[in-house]
Amino acid sequence: MCQNHGVAYIKPGVVEVREIEYPKLALGNRKCEHGVILKIVSTNICGSDQHMVRGRTTAPEGLILGHEITGLVIESGRDVEFIKEGDLVSVPFNIACGRCRNCKAGQTGICLNVNPARPGAAYGYVDMGGWVGGQAEYVMVPYADFNLLKFPDSDQAMAKIRDLTLLSDIFPTGFHGAVTAGVGPGSIVYVAGAGPVGLACAASCHLLGAALVIVGDMIDERLEQARSFGCETIDLKKEATLAEQIEQIVGVPEVDCAVDCVGFEAKGHGVDSDVEQPATVLNSIMEVTRAGGQLGIPGLYVTGDPGAVDEAAKKGSLSIRIGLGWAKSHSIHTGQCPVMKYHRQLMNAILYDKIKIADAVNVEVISLQNSVKGYADFDKGAAKKFVIDPHGMIPV
Amino acid sequence: MCQNHGVAYIKPGVVEVREIEYPKLALGNRKCEHGVILKIVSTNICGSDQHMVRGRTTAPEGLILGHEITGLVIESGRDVEFIKEGDLVSVPFNIACGRCRNCKAGQTGICLNVNPARPGAAYGYVDMGGWVGGQAEYVMVPYADFNLLKFPDSDQAMAKIRDLTLLSDIFPTGFHGAVTAGVGPGSIVYVAGAGPVGLACAASCHLLGAALVIVGDMIDERLEQARSFGCETIDLKKEATLAEQIEQIVGVPEVDCAVDCVGFEAKGHGVDSDVEQPATVLNSIMEVTRAGGQLGIPGLYVTGDPGAVDEAAKKGSLSIRIGLGWAKSHSIHTGQCPVMKYHRQLMNAILYDKIKIADAVNVEVISLQNSVKGYADFDKGAAKKFVIDPHGMIPV
Amino acid sequence: MCQNHGVAYIKPGVVEVREIEYPKLALGNRKCEHGVILKIVSTNICGSDQHMVRGRTTAPEGLILGHEITGLVIESGRDVEFIKEGDLVSVPFNIACGRCRNCKAGQTGICLNVNPARPGAAYGYVDMGGWVGGQAEYVMVPYADFNLLKFPDSDQAMAKIRDLTLLSDIFPTGFHGAVTAGVGPGSIVYVAGAGPVGLACAASCHLLGAALVIVGDMIDERLEQARSFGCETIDLKKEATLAEQIEQIVGVPEVDCAVDCVGFEAKGHGVDSDVEQPATVLNSIMEVTRAGGQLGIPGLYVTGDPGAVDEAAKKGSLSIRIGLGWAKSHSIHTGQCPVMKYHRQLMNAILYDKIKIADAVNVEVISLQNSVKGYADFDKGAAKKFVIDPHGMIPV
Amino acid sequence: MCQNHGVAYIKPGVVEVREIEYPKLALGNRKCEHGVILKIVSTNICGSDQHMVRGRTTAPEGLILGHEITGLVIESGRDVEFIKEGDLVSVPFNIACGRCRNCKAGQTGICLNVNPARPGAAYGYVDMGGWVGGQAEYVMVPYADFNLLKFPDSDQAMAKIRDLTLLSDIFPTGFHGAVTAGVGPGSIVYVAGAGPVGLACAASCHLLGAALVIVGDMIDERLEQARSFGCETIDLKKEATLAEQIEQIVGVPEVDCAVDCVGFEAKGHGVDSDVEQPATVLNSIMEVTRAGGQLGIPGLYVTGDPGAVDEAAKKGSLSIRIGLGWAKSHSIHTGQCPVMKYHRQLMNAILYDKIKIADAVNVEVISLQNSVKGYADFDKGAAKKFVIDPHGMIPV
Repeated sequence: MCQNHGVAYIKPGVVEVREIEYPKLALGNRKCEHGVILKIVSTNICGSDQHMVRGRTTAPEGLILGHEITGLVIESGRDVEFIKEGDLVSVPFNIACGRCRNCKAGQTGICLNVNPARPGAAYGYVDMGGWVGGQAEYVMVPYADFNLLKFPDSDQAMAKIRDLTLLSDIFPTGFHGAVTAGVGPGSIVYVAGAGPVGLACAASCHLLGAALVIVGDMIDERLEQARSFGCETIDLKKEATLAEQIEQIVGVPEVDCAVDCVGFEAKGHGVDSDVEQPATVLNSIMEVTRAGGQLGIPGLYVTGDPGAVDEAAKKGSLSIRIGLGWAKSHSIHTGQCPVMKYHRQLMNAILYDKIKIADAVNVEVISLQNSVKGYADFDKGAAKKFVIDPHGMIPV
Repeated sequence: MCQNHGVAYIKPGVVEVREIEYPKLALGNRKCEHGVILKIVSTNICGSDQHMVRGRTTAPEGLILGHEITGLVIESGRDVEFIKEGDLVSVPFNIACGRCRNCKAGQTGICLNVNPARPGAAYGYVDMGGWVGGQAEYVMVPYADFNLLKFPDSDQAMAKIRDLTLLSDIFPTGFHGAVTAGVGPGSIVYVAGAGPVGLACAASCHLLGAALVIVGDMIDERLEQARSFGCETIDLKKEATLAEQIEQIVGVPEVDCAVDCVGFEAKGHGVDSDVEQPATVLNSIMEVTRAGGQLGIPGLYVTGDPGAVDEAAKKGSLSIRIGLGWAKSHSIHTGQCPVMKYHRQLMNAILYDKIKIADAVNVEVISLQNSVKGYADFDKGAAKKFVIDPHGMIPV
Repeated sequence: MCQNHGVAYIKPGVVEVREIEYPKLALGNRKCEHGVILKIVSTNICGSDQHMVRGRTTAPEGLILGHEITGLVIESGRDVEFIKEGDLVSVPFNIACGRCRNCKAGQTGICLNVNPARPGAAYGYVDMGGWVGGQAEYVMVPYADFNLLKFPDSDQAMAKIRDLTLLSDIFPTGFHGAVTAGVGPGSIVYVAGAGPVGLACAASCHLLGAALVIVGDMIDERLEQARSFGCETIDLKKEATLAEQIEQIVGVPEVDCAVDCVGFEAKGHGVDSDVEQPATVLNSIMEVTRAGGQLGIPGLYVTGDPGAVDEAAKKGSLSIRIGLGWAKSHSIHTGQCPVMKYHRQLMNAILYDKIKIADAVNVEVISLQNSVKGYADFDKGAAKKFVIDPHGMIPV
Repeated sequence: MCQNHGVAYIKPGVVEVREIEYPKLALGNRKCEHGVILKIVSTNICGSDQHMVRGRTTAPEGLILGHEITGLVIESGRDVEFIKEGDLVSVPFNIACGRCRNCKAGQTGICLNVNPARPGAAYGYVDMGGWVGGQAEYVMVPYADFNLLKFPDSDQAMAKIRDLTLLSDIFPTGFHGAVTAGVGPGSIVYVAGAGPVGLACAASCHLLGAALVIVGDMIDERLEQARSFGCETIDLKKEATLAEQIEQIVGVPEVDCAVDCVGFEAKGHGVDSDVEQPATVLNSIMEVTRAGGQLGIPGLYVTGDPGAVDEAAKKGSLSIRIGLGWAKSHSIHTGQCPVMKYHRQLMNAILYDKIKIADAVNVEVISLQNSVKGYADFDKGAAKKFVIDPHGMIPV
């Protein structure tokens, strides 16, 4: 039996790499003969992991983190028919059975059979079904025939692994935000947030043919990163309002559509840019999006937040300018990205060199041992996407 | 020059029928050679008129009410090419130029050329461009070739005028709510509100093939009206929660999709059923709609409400459980119905006897003089849709 | 081991009921631990079976017919997780793995893993993967968790089994034709063919809210059947052209959209109504569909037809008025219905009494022994849908 | 009164520049107070003009050619409200009233009010309503408020006029072909034809995010042009079949979707590459498009072709492998591009430097006098898009 190590959440602000159990084809008493064991080739640190690490959730001590996983199949259950040992595969962060009403409709983010508590599950996440996370050396992936995306050629894939590793979550998630905002050829878009999801969204807007992509944030190096691949940027530390800054770029204080890549830990604007204002992104994108526009909300909003600014927010209720949105006939699209809906086409965009997504989000490969530092740097706002390479397989 | 009379808003709680100016092919200094003068055959009292009459807006004294208009063309501007004198026509409540970016995209509810203050206009409504209302004997309709729907046969149309009069607003509005909620064959739907829009929405759900339509309200006779055409109903005065009552009907505490036909003057549930709680409908439909479902919001939410329950609500900000909606991957569709998108097909549904929409909403025809009483009765919750017949043209 | 009997194709014009092998959880050497054995409750004779029986295909002697199956789960493979013994289930006629690119996209009619020869498979059909047909007492259904639709209550389902049995093929197939033709509320539709699929399509058009449904055929009793549920009809034996007859009904010689429920064994019009003209339906629906309309083509067209009228038709090439279609900006939608996309919602429409589909297509229940006569009667144009009841389980 | 000159069709193979009438705000007896007179800035020669010039239509002697028009408004009718003298505008080639059922639905290619003979009209085209063509110095554009796209800044627009001139037809037409074929991020597409529409389509596929765009033609310099902006190419003169050549590029003999940018004057393959085979493109794209794919058909197919290869083709009937398409569940999308649906967003793509469409199609600006030579060169297969500059306004 192989050894296994993974990144564990210990307490607010603390993670550590520890030895963990080698995965089985089971989740507790639930047999997973439909699953496979992966030797993990790459596994990324995600902004949503930070919600747990910052203590903004009820994540228990010892939870193994990591839901962005790419790996090599080294063992497969007896019910696995089409995925084979030796396949190099991308794992969608949403765990899905492929057999329920929602999965059959392509809504793999809200599968009904993988989480007794609610629709939808993920690896290594609180309240998401108890599946073991993948910031580790090995992990079990259930319903492998359904969930996994096999790369057509392993050598070609390893050469682009910095890009392909982003297919498990943030590239599709950013893309989903853009799609649900109605971004298409010629669109003028505002993307709130220049963290990895925001940058992936901005790059996705370009891929979708947007004419002008404007990214807002308050961290200079993240804005610089956005500019590096052709975006205009807005510095939210400035006093000028979002609408005013948009007007300077577009000529009118409006965009066609907008994407919220920030979520509930949003901070204010100008002098408030250090103050948490959980509804501020939602309300500001309603303000700057033209009548008839769509709002994509891939940024996470939660049903419970012990660290929230007020009682309502602790239950996930925010004060939203719905009257303004209604007057503008906005439509608002929320929820987890159903990764499977997009990952095959986005893989092709990578393999045929249509997009340099790793450059856009500034991937930095680190070892499993350095993941603790990666968490700390990311929390400080580094304009980087940290990709853990637990077996040292990623070519330099 | 003919005389003209119309229903004027005087002050909170008071309307009166007064003599008004006969319409011209102009709005102030703006010439409307693209317009026509209609002899009004029918014009309906709408729930959104009540917001003004109750003093929940800044409507000025003397505003002539009425945006649900059906009439006979008696004069046309020199630039009108396809609409002819003698045509019997339905007027969409949204005024649209047919020439701007939004109109070209079918978004006639947010036309850019008919209201200097914001996208979108309507007849006889505060802040909606200053166009004179049509609860009157005569009215001017601009951009007639674009806006008007001509009935193919006037005699046939007059025989069904109780139904066809609903094409100017509430039938398309209810239908739009259902469509944006994703209602289709086999759907299980919850419709919040059994006023005329709610009933029109419920009837539209049946037209769209819904398997089960559940309507909630706290007025008994409105619920009875909903049951009269095959809906299940929920009495919001009862203590059992909405989810509990849905479970009794469906077997699970969830529906596929939901429509908010109430808007910002919503009241609470059970013991609170007399207390205004402006976000209660939005939050309750999020609670009972299954993960992946859509929410249609034809109910009006406003950007300013002087009579609101708190400071935030006065600006149109409500405390919404966005965390819950996000966890369920809901999408939320707001705004005025673009009537033109639907009125032709719904006309056919009426003319070919696919729907008895006048029966569903319980049309009662009244004279112009009786419109004051109609307002009062409607405000008390009469399960009726009042249709004003200013010239006594509607056959008994 | 139980005995099993099924309907076998012997040679052109001849079928017989014979003893057949009891099903195994396998197809030849391919293990099907993901499959179940069904005791068949009902199994319908389909028009596409007739293509084989008439000798218009290369079906081999002994092929067990039947792809419209409803049954009771009596045994399940070790990898079946959510379907249980005792479940009463509907089987989509398209066999699908639930794990390939097409299945994940909802295109279960062209699954890539169930037929080595081409995308797509079915039970009991030539060139469709070799899966044993279900006009029998027992049958094996692979990928049961994915394929099967479980009825929520068996007693309720048995009471409506005449309707629910149609979910395996013709109800969704007719519905798919209507949906791909763009039928919706208020549509004026022409349905070519009043066999079971045509009647199911016409009933589906009504369910979708169509204002006027016109059905054309040359068999009087089938037209009478169409009139029984509110359709207008066109007698193709008459000399008046289709356009002329439509004009008599609609007032103009055009419909909004049209559905071809006939396919390649189409016959001509008027004096040619006994002569095979394989492209006549396609060309006539292009003629009568308005510019901008859509054409749904659920009727079967084949890649090889040994009995065709000319050499081109033997290879599936027909002389189509593409110039006319192009001038009208038509779009044309072909192919097998992906049953899974629709069967759940259509089940609800049946269970909540929104549609009487068994009455619409005139279901007649027969015993397995009488299936030979059923084939003969159906071939003569009986306005009936024959449902075989192999175990005498259907209540009278 | 100004003088005017234009390109006239004389007889098969012959065009000439002659003096023509200065435009009026009328078409015969039909007044066009909704129209404007344009001083033409650029007007392009189109492949569909060649059908007339080659004598493949019933175009009368003296017909003034030209439907791809960009110009400066110098006079406007009294009903024109939003377009102003001095505006620099793009004219969609489809003439549309903006007031009929089809225009309201965005189907401006089949307007009901601009051509007594059939839905749809165009400038300078046989059977398209008799509107005078725009390969001239001046032209009248009706329904100007509706039809015209105003460039936001004239100086900026003149600097990009080589690109913007393509908005009147071929850029939207190629884009429409791609959109109706379902092209999106990651798609693998085959574009049949490397004339200007084919090249515009290929560039549009890239704009839409396609991963791999393969263009087929038999003219070497056109293929080289396709390669110049990142397409793979297929030489149809070679003996290897289309499927074989696709397999060499993709690894499988299939693409996700395909676009026919050739139309009815198609020629064969390999040794037949000089022989007209009008259905060959349609049939070959069915062969190479994967099951479930869509086919976009912007290439023109006609209802009458006096020069066709056989009697059926003279009436627009072609022998199409519909059996193959059906087996693959293809959908087929035909008809004129409704330019207005796309031109605003594509204008933004040009103005914000997202696409170099003039480079892609190899624009060459010529004088009006040189247009006769332009026709001749284009007919010989020059890999160029000829743009006529009648007033010498285009900066070198």
